[in-house]
Amino acid sequence: MTEPSPCLPRTGVPPIPEARSWAAAYGGQAGPVIDLTQAVPGYPPHPGLLAHLAAAAATTEAAAYGEITGDAALRAALAADMRRLYGTPVRDSDLAITAGCNLAFVMAAMVAAGPGEAVLLPCPWYFNHAMALQMRGVEPRPLPCRPEDGFVPDPERAASLIDARVRAIALISPNNPTGAIYPAETIARFYALCRARGLWLILDETYRDFLPDATAPHALFADPDWGQTLVDLYSFSKAYCVPGHRVGAVAAGQGFRAQLAKVLDTLQICPPRAAQMALAWAVPALGGWREGNRAIMAERARAFRTALAAAPAWRIDALGGYFSYLRLPEEAPDAGETARRLAAERGLLLLPGPFFGPGQERYLRVAFANAETSAIRAIPGRFAPAE
Amino acid sequence: MTEPSPCLPRTGVPPIPEARSWAAAYGGQAGPVIDLTQAVPGYPPHPGLLAHLAAAAATTEAAAYGEITGDAALRAALAADMRRLYGTPVRDSDLAITAGCNLAFVMAAMVAAGPGEAVLLPCPWYFNHAMALQMRGVEPRPLPCRPEDGFVPDPERAASLIDARVRAIALISPNNPTGAIYPAETIARFYALCRARGLWLILDETYRDFLPDATAPHALFADPDWGQTLVDLYSFSKAYCVPGHRVGAVAAGQGFRAQLAKVLDTLQICPPRAAQMALAWAVPALGGWREGNRAIMAERARAFRTALAAAPAWRIDALGGYFSYLRLPEEAPDAGETARRLAAERGLLLLPGPFFGPGQERYLRVAFANAETSAIRAIPGRFAPAE
Repeated sequence: MTEPSPCLPRTGVPPIPEARSWAAAYGGQAGPVIDLTQAVPGYPPHPGLLAHLAAAAATTEAAAYGEITGDAALRAALAADMRRLYGTPVRDSDLAITAGCNLAFVMAAMVAAGPGEAVLLPCPWYFNHAMALQMRGVEPRPLPCRPEDGFVPDPERAASLIDARVRAIALISPNNPTGAIYPAETIARFYALCRARGLWLILDETYRDFLPDATAPHALFADPDWGQTLVDLYSFSKAYCVPGHRVGAVAAGQGFRAQLAKVLDTLQICPPRAAQMALAWAVPALGGWREGNRAIMAERARAFRTALAAAPAWRIDALGGYFSYLRLPEEAPDAGETARRLAAERGLLLLPGPFFGPGQERYLRVAFANAETSAIRAIPGRFAPAE
Repeated sequence: MTEPSPCLPRTGVPPIPEARSWAAAYGGQAGPVIDLTQAVPGYPPHPGLLAHLAAAAATTEAAAYGEITGDAALRAALAADMRRLYGTPVRDSDLAITAGCNLAFVMAAMVAAGPGEAVLLPCPWYFNHAMALQMRGVEPRPLPCRPEDGFVPDPERAASLIDARVRAIALISPNNPTGAIYPAETIARFYALCRARGLWLILDETYRDFLPDATAPHALFADPDWGQTLVDLYSFSKAYCVPGHRVGAVAAGQGFRAQLAKVLDTLQICPPRAAQMALAWAVPALGGWREGNRAIMAERARAFRTALAAAPAWRIDALGGYFSYLRLPEEAPDAGETARRLAAERGLLLLPGPFFGPGQERYLRVAFANAETSAIRAIPGRFAPAE
């Protein structure tokens, strides 16, 4: 057989289908399956959004190509939303809409770093970020995070890892996989570091609508020169419960966007139109609904912390946004084996730490946001061995 | 400012917005603008498809993540359609659905060739294919096509251009930009060449529904080992008039798909769901409608040839599918200048040859499929200088 590019065999396999396959052997003895693998909202989209999606999809306009950088109406709506959140003048023209935030990262990283170069990723990392780099021959360089820091990365340690090959640092806050919420001051220090060293700061804020409160998560947009260093990513999937419609966004400066336009045109031509049209309505219209979801997520985080008190050997090393990062009891087998057993014997699906980079053998990622409070309360019971 | 990856400045700019900008100066003196730049169907989608798109978009299912390789129903529908067309047993599991065929090419090329390697592209080439390679540090190596061959590439010339860096040959038939329809025998010779030399043959059949007749365009799927060499691409955008919904497909063998799954998961997670659900209905249901469109396209091709007889200095060097490749009169300025003048002075928008690779200074691409017969008849009048 003809051989694939050597970059691909070196890239990891998609973790979520693999983890779900472990549950095939589960016979239901501990209760219904609790699937906390994928970050999906545990409640449906707003009925008004479904109505707008349907109305948009019925049009010939939605069937036609749109602008490479996305529909003007959605860019305007998101820019207004960002001005409100950050309290600074983000412009429509700073934004490009993308076919999902995974693709936003892939495309931003293509502009930021080429083959043979490197991007610093706090570790544990989001597996698709590492895969996106590996499959292009870009090194995902781990910036190890420590449980004693709540898995918030250290800018000084980052500085010590920068060499001539590093072209960018990519942060996610609230973090995937740990749930850690990076303080605004930490984000500012990473920004200053990137600016001083001529690196891009790619900041993935997919989960920003699920911060505990509605204040600005950082002040980077207040710097009039932010576009020379910052590339900010966003996802509509989580905030509006529409991951199947694949819409994300990039905010970047003019020079970055000039190169990004080539990638947008080549990879996506345009983002899906119907979802863009409906979301342009939803961004201003569903502000109150989104606030309600923020409260639901905070409640689920509290429920998770309360529930886990019943299983003190399982240590919550980080918690926030959508996720918790859970340290295994000392006597438990490694994360891969523990996750396999929990899935096959106890119907509890979690992702083992090794999917998130080196040194994570004692951790599990819990996407608690997927589950209703009743399911969250059932988690400690699943940790107990079968009787 | 922080610098972009050096691959990006070396990549060309998106041609269609640039070409359209030339028409800004047009004052309407020669009649309404005729935009033959982008390959978009010149008629609306079937009303039944719009109804199914709306019904699908109204569901919570469409808002949720789907399978990485696409919805099983759409894969089954497309596999059945391909079995009917090719007369050979293509299986559902051979297929992956993608967020558009541009992304299908990007993802297939990521598996086939990495940085520092090369892919042979018949030249003139589809600009996004070349851009997709350039931005990853992969060389798009031109395989020059000759007007005296009707722009059908020569497998022997291809063989002479293969060295250790070449990992794949990418063909498009019916071709973009020329419209050339490659004979089944030529495709078979390229397949044999790739097989013998251990290369992938990426065959982009975006325009296959617009071949003059409904017979199989090639017999490659009849080889039980096709999956060890062939990667076949398809687009739903053209056949179903839904480019704004972004759905394409890849057919490939098991080994290729194992690597492709990593790319699918990282770049798209899943293709847009609502359009997949509606297309699963459309593929079997709209067979007759698609046949009607094939006839419309054939009629437009005839109308274009007839119309151009009135402008014999403009030579049709290739014609088929969606496109014609037109050689400029000897006295005309180069393609870039001619295209600019036609847009600004005569309201006729065509893409100049240099967007399609080296050596194309005397050509224009005409996406005649976009225009009704009446507009096609008006083309020669636009070639005449303003009075």
